[in-house]
Amino acid sequence: MLIRSGCCIFAPVGIYLIKMESIKVIGFDADDTLWVNGSYFSEVEASFCALLAEYMPEKELTAELFRTEMKNMEWYGYGAMAYTLSLIETALRISHEKVSATVIWEILALGRSLLNKPVQLFPGVTDVLPFLQDKYRLIVVTKGDLLDQERKLEKSGLLPFFHHIEVVSEKCESNYLNLINALDIRPEEFLMVGNSLKSDVLPVLAIGGKAVHVPFDTVWQHETAEKPDTPYIEIKSLVDLPRVLA
Amino acid sequence: MLIRSGCCIFAPVGIYLIKMESIKVIGFDADDTLWVNGSYFSEVEASFCALLAEYMPEKELTAELFRTEMKNMEWYGYGAMAYTLSLIETALRISHEKVSATVIWEILALGRSLLNKPVQLFPGVTDVLPFLQDKYRLIVVTKGDLLDQERKLEKSGLLPFFHHIEVVSEKCESNYLNLINALDIRPEEFLMVGNSLKSDVLPVLAIGGKAVHVPFDTVWQHETAEKPDTPYIEIKSLVDLPRVLA
Repeated sequence: MLIRSGCCIFAPVGIYLIKMESIKVIGFDADDTLWVNGSYFSEVEASFCALLAEYMPEKELTAELFRTEMKNMEWYGYGAMAYTLSLIETALRISHEKVSATVIWEILALGRSLLNKPVQLFPGVTDVLPFLQDKYRLIVVTKGDLLDQERKLEKSGLLPFFHHIEVVSEKCESNYLNLINALDIRPEEFLMVGNSLKSDVLPVLAIGGKAVHVPFDTVWQHETAEKPDTPYIEIKSLVDLPRVLA
Repeated sequence: MLIRSGCCIFAPVGIYLIKMESIKVIGFDADDTLWVNGSYFSEVEASFCALLAEYMPEKELTAELFRTEMKNMEWYGYGAMAYTLSLIETALRISHEKVSATVIWEILALGRSLLNKPVQLFPGVTDVLPFLQDKYRLIVVTKGDLLDQERKLEKSGLLPFFHHIEVVSEKCESNYLNLINALDIRPEEFLMVGNSLKSDVLPVLAIGGKAVHVPFDTVWQHETAEKPDTPYIEIKSLVDLPRVLA
């Protein structure tokens, strides 16, 4: 690992393998990369646990909720609506269908509140995007509710910087390959920037693209992953991105 | 109106305005155009009303549910998850938060059942698509849950016939314009085929595209619209589509 200029290059086979000159398109993850998201879910989860404290302690309940989410992932996918349905299902199950309609109403309201949170941009986003826009085609590659992601982008004021938005059901190799084909570029001309090793880094490296990891404090258990063997770059903040590309 | 060959041309200003020679891309709506969908929602709605019969008669409850859906549309958008959340909200409200957790559990199960229905293709779909695929670029343009639509397309066996899938949050003029720009074609080179006048016909005609309407028995109240003044073609079944394009 070599540290310089505020960015780490995880390069087990040498940093010179990461050449950025070929990049034509930069894909940005949205939630927890451009703006705060995970901490809103954490707040809702804390309120959910408080509502159901009489049935189960917080730690156990959080684990139960995660199990419900993983079971439902195949059917509901990602996003606030999927999450709300899993909250309700968990409440019903762990209370042995004893939970009151009033509590369900409050859970529904908690879930809906996630759709109307302010969009808090991370430092440097509004400086970095216009700077990069002159040289690269910038796109957003995100998962979750289509409508919710569109609304957040609209609220963020960042839409003018992006060529277009790709909302995908899963950030897997095949979806990245489809995207690269649709963009009419080669994999090595694509750079993905995001906070999730699992979704933004690993599948992109696997198809021959490049990746910059920008870790965020809150990492959802589902998004944790081992660091890959293929070299990638880690930066502390998007502010460092132009330097990586220079 | 001129009727011939099983298709009606609604052409107040003359049928020769609808020239199909320029078409390069055909967009197909999915739900209730390629396969059955609305009747599954009707079945779930009937079960929902039966579950809550002690609180409200069916007709009144259906109207209440529709009001909830319209109120939530801005936040939840379309699809089975949005619908399930509106079912739960309606049940809580009309029962004055008296409904039991067991009934909520059953509503949750009803909603989830929508995500696992068999994909019943309409007659002729598997004949018409390969026939058209040789001459046109075929795409799917649909709204609803991204994951659910992808799953239905996978189950349908129709994926090989389509160049790609566009899941949009709303079938409005601006989204159709974005699509046409992304396809790198002119509006008059785009034909949309679908069961909804409101979503598949009106906005496409408004931006200078062409449209074929294939009505289906079940029309969701939200999708009803007045017939437009601009000429468009109505066919009874997708089987008639090649004749329209000949």
